[in-house]
Amino acid sequence: VKVYLDCFPCFMRQALDAARMATDDTMVQRRVLDEVAKLLPTVPLDATPIDIGQLIHRLVREITGVADPYKKVKRESNDLGLKLYSYLKSEIEASEDPLLMALNIAGAGNIIDFGPKLALDSNTSMEEILKGSFTQALQNQLNQADYDSFKHKLENVEGVLYLGDNTGEIVCDKLLIEQLLKVGKKVTFVVRDKPTINDATLEDAVYVGLDKLATVMLNGSDAPGTRLKDCSSEFRHLFECSELIISKGQGNFEGLSEVPGPIFFLFKVKCPVIAREVDTNIGAIVLKEQIAEKVPK
Amino acid sequence: VKVYLDCFPCFMRQALDAARMATDDTMVQRRVLDEVAKLLPTVPLDATPIDIGQLIHRLVREITGVADPYKKVKRESNDLGLKLYSYLKSEIEASEDPLLMALNIAGAGNIIDFGPKLALDSNTSMEEILKGSFTQALQNQLNQADYDSFKHKLENVEGVLYLGDNTGEIVCDKLLIEQLLKVGKKVTFVVRDKPTINDATLEDAVYVGLDKLATVMLNGSDAPGTRLKDCSSEFRHLFECSELIISKGQGNFEGLSEVPGPIFFLFKVKCPVIAREVDTNIGAIVLKEQIAEKVPK
Repeated sequence: VKVYLDCFPCFMRQALDAARMATDDTMVQRRVLDEVAKLLPTVPLDATPIDIGQLIHRLVREITGVADPYKKVKRESNDLGLKLYSYLKSEIEASEDPLLMALNIAGAGNIIDFGPKLALDSNTSMEEILKGSFTQALQNQLNQADYDSFKHKLENVEGVLYLGDNTGEIVCDKLLIEQLLKVGKKVTFVVRDKPTINDATLEDAVYVGLDKLATVMLNGSDAPGTRLKDCSSEFRHLFECSELIISKGQGNFEGLSEVPGPIFFLFKVKCPVIAREVDTNIGAIVLKEQIAEKVPK
Repeated sequence: VKVYLDCFPCFMRQALDAARMATDDTMVQRRVLDEVAKLLPTVPLDATPIDIGQLIHRLVREITGVADPYKKVKRESNDLGLKLYSYLKSEIEASEDPLLMALNIAGAGNIIDFGPKLALDSNTSMEEILKGSFTQALQNQLNQADYDSFKHKLENVEGVLYLGDNTGEIVCDKLLIEQLLKVGKKVTFVVRDKPTINDATLEDAVYVGLDKLATVMLNGSDAPGTRLKDCSSEFRHLFECSELIISKGQGNFEGLSEVPGPIFFLFKVKCPVIAREVDTNIGAIVLKEQIAEKVPK
């Protein structure tokens, strides 16, 4: 996904949100906005939104001196996910097609994202918003062809590379991974190397117990999405060799939408730019097989 | 009203909206965004939002070479207002208190504003949005004390200085001015000197027939609101001498909120910053007497 002009106001808004998470000092918040404003004219048109997101959140951390502005909301999100875990597990197990239901719930959990402009900062509590997203998940609006293809490909692989996205959401990922384990697949769960927005890191994966189920791996990057050129060579190697990749969230989609591979994107659409890219509405839960093909050498 | 940090992302969004009104060329749109981004770090904290709005819309006009980007929507807004004129007039005349109803309708018409981020650019037509605003107006939620004070002050003056805001809305202003004439007041109706956003200019006032009812006066400025220091000395003199001033819209409020005078602000609240300033919700129609007092010399 290339940066759209619509992203420019959104970058400023995202910088302000993050600066406010980090500090109450409005002069420092203003300095963040000024530095982001200076950055914008340098943005190349072939950048992806997460290329710029990475720079913005680095600026926020540098200028405010706060290494992890979203620390508190990340913990709250994880706790909320864990609180709902049993309920969601029973929904999955009571379902006719537990794998499909687990995909839906993992997609619905992607609502816990502090990057895009969301209802998350309004008067509605995160719990209410999350529950609304799960109610939607129970209705399964995933594309049938993409799901059939996913099931078919899953049958023929030994393991799955699972690219995580946000805190809280990772509890939903855990539920999906349990279904993958049930059909005998090995899972490697990938997290960001350093804190960025409310994205899950190693600490979060361990906090919700993902390390008990999957091999947890750092991707070597602090971008709020998978920027391959920014990732460690170990991760890139594993990515290249993987037979099946589940890529969670908008940020990972932004970075990988044009990267050929056996990728299934699973996310909640949260902004007009991405809604246009995948030709659906804001709020939709999307499972989407990668259509980009390798250019023959 | 001083600029808030929340205004910064909104300035970028407003610049993009205006650039898109002016041209389909995304490279030119990008150039507008870059220049506005460069402007933002220079914004002094004691600026008002319309100080910056004026600079932004000048940049849009200069960079795109389009002198009046909103020309088409302004004409459409005026035509829509004229189409609804008879219906609104009958509502006013059938009302128990025609003056109060005319104030409500003039406030409701202030929804036709292409500055703030609005539903105006969504799938809902401007006519539907406007009608929704009038339905709200029929319920009269104006502050009773402010209305009582307005009525009382109106009784004791010869004339009213009426600061117009947007195209289309000026048809609603015409309806209120008819009520003012009915009780024997003279009205001077003030428009922007040059096009800025969808604000009414002399051409618009003549188009809807306001010149037949009131003395129409230019304020000497191209700011999207009343910036006194930017207005002509003729206007400033009249402003100083006026016994009663009706100031329509957020932009005029932003410029005059701290200027002492016999001012009644009448507008629809359209952004969180102004909602906070007047302690009400987005969407509210507000009649508000000026509380700022002259500092003794």
